[in-house]
Amino acid sequence: MSLISGLDRFTLCFSSNLLSQEEETKSWKKLIKIAVSGAAGMISNHLLFKLASGEVFGPDQPVALKLLGSERSIQALEGVAMELEDSLFPLLREVNIGIDPYEVFQDVEWALLIGAKPRGPGMERADLLDINGQIFAEQGKALNAVASRNVKVMVVGNPCNTNALICMKNAPDIPAKNFHALTRLDENRAKCQLALKAGVFYDKVSNVTIWGNHSTTQVPDFLNATINGLPVTEIIKDRKWLEEEFTEKVQKRGGVLIQKWGRSSAASTSVSIVDAIRSLITPTPKGDWFSSGVYTTGNPYGIAEDIIFSMACRSKGDGDYELVKDVMIDDFLWNRIKKSEAELLAEKRCVAHLTGEGIAVCDLPGDTMLPGEM
Amino acid sequence: MSLISGLDRFTLCFSSNLLSQEEETKSWKKLIKIAVSGAAGMISNHLLFKLASGEVFGPDQPVALKLLGSERSIQALEGVAMELEDSLFPLLREVNIGIDPYEVFQDVEWALLIGAKPRGPGMERADLLDINGQIFAEQGKALNAVASRNVKVMVVGNPCNTNALICMKNAPDIPAKNFHALTRLDENRAKCQLALKAGVFYDKVSNVTIWGNHSTTQVPDFLNATINGLPVTEIIKDRKWLEEEFTEKVQKRGGVLIQKWGRSSAASTSVSIVDAIRSLITPTPKGDWFSSGVYTTGNPYGIAEDIIFSMACRSKGDGDYELVKDVMIDDFLWNRIKKSEAELLAEKRCVAHLTGEGIAVCDLPGDTMLPGEM
Repeated sequence: MSLISGLDRFTLCFSSNLLSQEEETKSWKKLIKIAVSGAAGMISNHLLFKLASGEVFGPDQPVALKLLGSERSIQALEGVAMELEDSLFPLLREVNIGIDPYEVFQDVEWALLIGAKPRGPGMERADLLDINGQIFAEQGKALNAVASRNVKVMVVGNPCNTNALICMKNAPDIPAKNFHALTRLDENRAKCQLALKAGVFYDKVSNVTIWGNHSTTQVPDFLNATINGLPVTEIIKDRKWLEEEFTEKVQKRGGVLIQKWGRSSAASTSVSIVDAIRSLITPTPKGDWFSSGVYTTGNPYGIAEDIIFSMACRSKGDGDYELVKDVMIDDFLWNRIKKSEAELLAEKRCVAHLTGEGIAVCDLPGDTMLPGEM
Repeated sequence: MSLISGLDRFTLCFSSNLLSQEEETKSWKKLIKIAVSGAAGMISNHLLFKLASGEVFGPDQPVALKLLGSERSIQALEGVAMELEDSLFPLLREVNIGIDPYEVFQDVEWALLIGAKPRGPGMERADLLDINGQIFAEQGKALNAVASRNVKVMVVGNPCNTNALICMKNAPDIPAKNFHALTRLDENRAKCQLALKAGVFYDKVSNVTIWGNHSTTQVPDFLNATINGLPVTEIIKDRKWLEEEFTEKVQKRGGVLIQKWGRSSAASTSVSIVDAIRSLITPTPKGDWFSSGVYTTGNPYGIAEDIIFSMACRSKGDGDYELVKDVMIDDFLWNRIKKSEAELLAEKRCVAHLTGEGIAVCDLPGDTMLPGEM
């Protein structure tokens, strides 16, 4: 029987009754439903196969994938669904495709929001915020209406922090702390660059935080980072490198990749999404933490409330997280954090019409899109 | 430190000494070296991340990836190597890139040969056999010269059976049975179609063999296949469907995907490569088997010797396999097998100049390339 259902023209012989009866006789975990938007794109093309293989949620966790696309991409969605079917993943119990978020998000426990419009030629950041903001406002409303009451939402489509804020504001019945903006690829790249500079294997680098916006104002934090348990600043003595080149290397990595590769970093982005999910569903190793763009209200650092800001998080592995209190913030770090905060507050004013907070006022600084991103 | 080394212009600060000292202190398995050709292509872009994540060789097996590309693709190879680095896979200990198979294949224990020239407009199958055959002859010589004496070679680049034969003939010091042509995607698609027709989940379908060439003469075998342990012919009574539509559906799947998706089936191909490798390194479940294009000399079915033909295999999980003896072959199946055999014998005559067996004579039948393949 086909796993795939969705639009009428693509309904094959999937029978969910037959499947769920079968499931009841198994000792496996209860099926979880995972929505992925932008499902026909390159990042999803990597991610969906990871979700289906058991790499993300484990070898005893059956999954149902709900693929959200656009009218334009529906044929491609059918194609990717067929490839998933041909892959015979034993854990993949159901594939739905659709273009209506109110259908696709029904009862989902995870919503991985990857789809976003790329910036066209001559388009200002304000225009991009508006166009994508409308998509995320609609998706927030749909999640609020039909998703699991404890759905975890991970926003990848850019500008992801403000998109996540818009989505959250349109989903008042879902806990605000369930919304994440992906900064894990930045964290991974930062760890890689510190390892390269120190001449150690990257598993020796820990406690790396990305603070702020997923943009060129982001702050990769070397002050709290450690290598082999020692402060990075004791291992890498080149302060100028840490203060200037390090941040630049992290931010320009995507641009270098586009130049060399001719493609955006779809594969490593999808790996970082897996890392981000796994960080929420497995206990954080003792003493370590991970970065995620999360809601600032109640944060212990003094960062402005009511925005989505990447900070240091720890999880018990229950899908939830808490902010890490014992981090050092010196003047250098704080000044940078404040710049990213100012940018996010400006972005927020620019999308006030989408968050239900009045009339939008756009006074954005220059272009802060990371190079190499759509 | 960087994991990446390769061409001079891309040598970063990788130090293999430092790494191997570190490795000696660990209880992990010894590093294995895996070569992948066509490493900048779409299939590899999926496969490399699976190899690096531990999905293929297991969570305690460190791997070194050796990426073979062309002068034209070297920048893209650097890009994919950087993405691998940014993914922080703990098992990935080394990435080499290069364009000389004599360097890249040094000591490799697995060679996954994915790269092949696509057929240009107006190009005959004989031309394609010749152009790609030369590549595989060179790679065979290189494997013979520098690879591990027990290297397992999996040929994915088309026409993969005859490419594998050419490669094998040019590597006389490597056991002939170590060469495989990938027919696992065909097997997976066949299982999927049988499951769809029978209305069962695909893990209920087993003992599916793809016989012959990875081309339109291939024979998906419903006679020996089982569903829930019963012969497929007892479950699916529609003999006309089994004899005609089933084979067509398996063969045309790639073509349908290209139409819908606009891309070839890179993701599911890479899943099937993983399946094929795992079938050789894990014991085959009792009573079941898998398909692989392997050397026919000594086969128990009466298939012509000295070609690469997809047949039913079982493995103890040691990287080796044996052919399954207890399969039924009726007249219908045998006639189809003979057609695929005739095609492979014709292909072999057409590449005699590349296998050291005299002057090529090309009397190929019409176009038998599977739709949707490059």
